[in-house]
Amino acid sequence: MICLFPGTFDPPTLGHMDIMRRAAKLADKLYVVVLVNSAKKPMFAPEERVLFLNECIRNLGLGNIVVDSFSGLLADYAKKVNAGCVIRSLRSGADFEYERPLALANDILCPGLETLFLAADPKYFHISSSLAKEIASHGGCTDAMVPADVSSRMQEKLASQRHNRV
Amino acid sequence: MICLFPGTFDPPTLGHMDIMRRAAKLADKLYVVVLVNSAKKPMFAPEERVLFLNECIRNLGLGNIVVDSFSGLLADYAKKVNAGCVIRSLRSGADFEYERPLALANDILCPGLETLFLAADPKYFHISSSLAKEIASHGGCTDAMVPADVSSRMQEKLASQRHNRV
Amino acid sequence: MICLFPGTFDPPTLGHMDIMRRAAKLADKLYVVVLVNSAKKPMFAPEERVLFLNECIRNLGLGNIVVDSFSGLLADYAKKVNAGCVIRSLRSGADFEYERPLALANDILCPGLETLFLAADPKYFHISSSLAKEIASHGGCTDAMVPADVSSRMQEKLASQRHNRV
Amino acid sequence: MICLFPGTFDPPTLGHMDIMRRAAKLADKLYVVVLVNSAKKPMFAPEERVLFLNECIRNLGLGNIVVDSFSGLLADYAKKVNAGCVIRSLRSGADFEYERPLALANDILCPGLETLFLAADPKYFHISSSLAKEIASHGGCTDAMVPADVSSRMQEKLASQRHNRV
Amino acid sequence: MICLFPGTFDPPTLGHMDIMRRAAKLADKLYVVVLVNSAKKPMFAPEERVLFLNECIRNLGLGNIVVDSFSGLLADYAKKVNAGCVIRSLRSGADFEYERPLALANDILCPGLETLFLAADPKYFHISSSLAKEIASHGGCTDAMVPADVSSRMQEKLASQRHNRV
Amino acid sequence: MICLFPGTFDPPTLGHMDIMRRAAKLADKLYVVVLVNSAKKPMFAPEERVLFLNECIRNLGLGNIVVDSFSGLLADYAKKVNAGCVIRSLRSGADFEYERPLALANDILCPGLETLFLAADPKYFHISSSLAKEIASHGGCTDAMVPADVSSRMQEKLASQRHNRV
Repeated sequence: MICLFPGTFDPPTLGHMDIMRRAAKLADKLYVVVLVNSAKKPMFAPEERVLFLNECIRNLGLGNIVVDSFSGLLADYAKKVNAGCVIRSLRSGADFEYERPLALANDILCPGLETLFLAADPKYFHISSSLAKEIASHGGCTDAMVPADVSSRMQEKLASQRHNRV
Repeated sequence: MICLFPGTFDPPTLGHMDIMRRAAKLADKLYVVVLVNSAKKPMFAPEERVLFLNECIRNLGLGNIVVDSFSGLLADYAKKVNAGCVIRSLRSGADFEYERPLALANDILCPGLETLFLAADPKYFHISSSLAKEIASHGGCTDAMVPADVSSRMQEKLASQRHNRV
Repeated sequence: MICLFPGTFDPPTLGHMDIMRRAAKLADKLYVVVLVNSAKKPMFAPEERVLFLNECIRNLGLGNIVVDSFSGLLADYAKKVNAGCVIRSLRSGADFEYERPLALANDILCPGLETLFLAADPKYFHISSSLAKEIASHGGCTDAMVPADVSSRMQEKLASQRHNRV
Repeated sequence: MICLFPGTFDPPTLGHMDIMRRAAKLADKLYVVVLVNSAKKPMFAPEERVLFLNECIRNLGLGNIVVDSFSGLLADYAKKVNAGCVIRSLRSGADFEYERPLALANDILCPGLETLFLAADPKYFHISSSLAKEIASHGGCTDAMVPADVSSRMQEKLASQRHNRV
Repeated sequence: MICLFPGTFDPPTLGHMDIMRRAAKLADKLYVVVLVNSAKKPMFAPEERVLFLNECIRNLGLGNIVVDSFSGLLADYAKKVNAGCVIRSLRSGADFEYERPLALANDILCPGLETLFLAADPKYFHISSSLAKEIASHGGCTDAMVPADVSSRMQEKLASQRHNRV
Repeated sequence: MICLFPGTFDPPTLGHMDIMRRAAKLADKLYVVVLVNSAKKPMFAPEERVLFLNECIRNLGLGNIVVDSFSGLLADYAKKVNAGCVIRSLRSGADFEYERPLALANDILCPGLETLFLAADPKYFHISSSLAKEIASHGGCTDAMVPADVSSRMQEKLASQRHNRV
């Protein structure tokens, strides 16, 4: 079974890593797909996020994961790589209500594309990419949120942004 | 009973059509009200949305629906047309939590204005205006989301936007 | 439009009275239907609950409400009296999740039977029939929960039950 | 991957059949496990439910499903058949909140046992085993809820129960 | 501030212990109140539950906690000990919807009685008293759910119940 | 116990005042903290919001409240004033799902910092700062939403903005 784990991953978090690890055990091949959304202004360019994710995978020591980036509909990417499943993580019932229309729409746009929901591990409940960025922007420690590499690159990115403003 | 079915309708969807059909059976007269919100940047101008809705109504063959647009508080519109009810659709419990403060505020701003909630038909659960626009922007098929007329006009609009950028 | 407001009403509460008052304004005729469920052990017999409800209606001074009791499927009762709508009250998103399958099933069993959801008035959020009974069973005051008549009859009922045990 | 789809299945519904069909596509082998709960009083004996499920599977024409019944902890059954996944269906966010502690507990009792959540198809949202039984007990039609075989056996079961009471 | 932490505690769990520890830091004096409910059939008698809780407190090394049992309304107990707050734990939004009417009713029955909600620590999300009892009844290990003392006493209780049935 | 009640307070509402009043009874000292978020475009400058809040407190006649503004992480402010608790208000289960990751993150960034959730009084359920601003922008009456002072200053602010556009 070929599975997709799509996301913005701006940046990838420890929670994303846990889902990747669990999804890789379920899938024959897992595509981690950085979705490029021209409307949002990300902190990191898609190619930087792909780089981060590849470092995460190296650290997990998993051989059946491919990282990619894509600008378009997930359903079209699924057709391209012949995927049968999308993996999504749920932290709460509210997450599920948000995800359901997307799962239904994907099944219409790519008939038979199944969405598998994994319950997020409670020990990562405090984590989100946006919270990590907000904490970093105030100089807070994000080591409990993102991989160490990502943590230091957020600091560099923020320092260079401050520099550019001067 | 005079009822209001307010919304942004940017664009109207098959889900909106279903609610209009059901609400028109409950109401003596149903006003479908395109709310004009200067803060959001819509895909279609209010007058285009009114046009779409009038086409929907013609297709539904319903005689007791009036389409209008309004910039202001819904409670003021309700006073103007002497409406007793607002119709809103619920797809989930989360929708209800979002709608409740608005229903309570409308009852304060226009005393006695009742809000009636209809459960969205599950066969339209995958639909939202914003999802339809996102799918259209990537060239995906939106026939399972919006009326056929709307689907083709979204494609025209997007094509002309691309043209204007060149 | 003929509407149904079904419930167990064991006993009717101030919250039920508020919904009856609001629903009677929407309906041409409103049937308040005491559903008889042989599986549950009620505090009051169906005929007592009908009596309470009739007193509530007299106090509300509303002429278009009929109280009835029924043992069977609500959809069958709807067919019998030619009702087009069921009225249900929502206190939370969780209430909606509970009500939705019932609304969908009623629409299948009696095609076209619409369910209208009203948001419970927040000033009755602390009220439920079961909480009123629990408070009464410990000798607490239920005047903020149920009509005064019902409050005193709960005390009589509990006193006679204690007497019968001796 | 060996998967479990546990439940009470008293009786199996069209919703259960849909999940079985989808789960069988994901799994190398799918065990549908009738959990025997001595506390609840079921309508059908475990062996009857196993029979119903086997008929469902024949109708689906799927070869990789085994039906079984079990009295004990699901985690122990998972160890016995060397299962890696439990399949559960979600109709709402509230379902997820209910399922999460069970998923977490199963992962503790059988380390690494993953729970995969599938979003229930909205066209089965009106269905539950208990609602089907309630409708049948009032002589209502359950053909939109359960397979035709199950529908007629519910009627037979209820007729024989009425007979025994005389 | 005098606080109450009420519950059934049949039996107390590691989650209850965590809330007691956190609540004891907030309160000048914390009453842990075993509510006696004649309708439910508990596994352990109220006096056994009080014993368990006292052992928990000894293990936590906290001096400002008093364990008590009470048959009646929590609001009446609050008046008796002059409490200003009730402590309740939330594991999900659904928990809050369940707790809110009780909090509102307590504020009416004992004016000014405030309810403070603490978010359950995610590492105890898999725990509930009823799940612990179900696991124990099937001979499963409950060490990740309840204190070690409680775990062994559940096994003894279940063994003696089996013996009595022979 | 030193408590924090953080928020944007743009502007403070009657709901905020109720929480301040209740929190001040629980706390030895309560810091009401206007969080300055450079990303959002507020209606009122932080110093105006501090002014409004100080007027609210004078009206409540409470002596143990200090109003402050802060640009940074709440956890850092908590360390600065040695606070042990954060007070947050919940209007629904959805609110709790939103607040939980923040509470968990604060406990990591400032170990031991507890978050206490108070259930919003249902009589303020229709209120939010953003709804008050929207109503004011359409010339609606906000007296049921915000203190009278704030209501008139919103009108002045909006009038001056219109003037500046001319």
